[in-house]
Amino acid sequence: MDEFMRAAIDEARKGAKEGGIPIGSVLVHNGKIIGRGHNKRVQTGSPTLHGEMDALENAGRQPASVYQQSVIYTTLSPCSMCSGAILLYGIPKVVIGENQSFLGEEALLKSRGVEIEMIDSDECKQLMSDFMAASPELWNEDIGE
Amino acid sequence: MDEFMRAAIDEARKGAKEGGIPIGSVLVHNGKIIGRGHNKRVQTGSPTLHGEMDALENAGRQPASVYQQSVIYTTLSPCSMCSGAILLYGIPKVVIGENQSFLGEEALLKSRGVEIEMIDSDECKQLMSDFMAASPELWNEDIGE
Repeated sequence: MDEFMRAAIDEARKGAKEGGIPIGSVLVHNGKIIGRGHNKRVQTGSPTLHGEMDALENAGRQPASVYQQSVIYTTLSPCSMCSGAILLYGIPKVVIGENQSFLGEEALLKSRGVEIEMIDSDECKQLMSDFMAASPELWNEDIGE
Repeated sequence: MDEFMRAAIDEARKGAKEGGIPIGSVLVHNGKIIGRGHNKRVQTGSPTLHGEMDALENAGRQPASVYQQSVIYTTLSPCSMCSGAILLYGIPKVVIGENQSFLGEEALLKSRGVEIEMIDSDECKQLMSDFMAASPELWNEDIGE
């Protein structure tokens, strides 16, 4: 597997070990990870730090030119908030672990010119299906349902 | 002026006093403010804490039913990230101070059934025009340009 999706899955597993929602993400600029993150709803009580948001947050303030030459990797199809952040910063490409557990705003991203690469990873699906079966209410909270 | 837009402007002014970007927001549930926030790019080095995101963050974890009965007030038209957060949580109404300094994703929000109320506040416009004239590079960074 691609080393960057591997790193995003490692982040998801780190979140699971912390008792959190197992979704991870990395922001990659010119072949180097500049931000790693995972969902922090449980760990810090955050409704905004989804995996992708946490990776962006941990990358810190970056000039537009960096985002515009970056790829964001996420273990799960990005929700409207995370997709909106991708659009705000003009990140041109998103690599997604899977979208069977949850289908985010891939159509919106594509309509705005963002390239989507789907890995369709069994490992990502297993992480989510185990979590969704164990904590359905927490999962619903995370997606506003 | 509406007390909640007043509170959002107070947040924007607080941000300006801290040397930050003067955009503020409050989340109101059943006539009561449950989260206040302002842009924290400068103050905490955050690329994700726009005013609306900070208000959501400060409201903490809420069940879907709370968001679905809430109104979010913001001094400036919400960008794609903040609009995406509004869509994620199903917040049904956004009250906006102004959209002349920056036009966010109002069309997307409307197309998804979110009600928009435009205040068209001279005070909000003045806050932004003073800031944009003084710190154009910081403003561009905040909107990914």
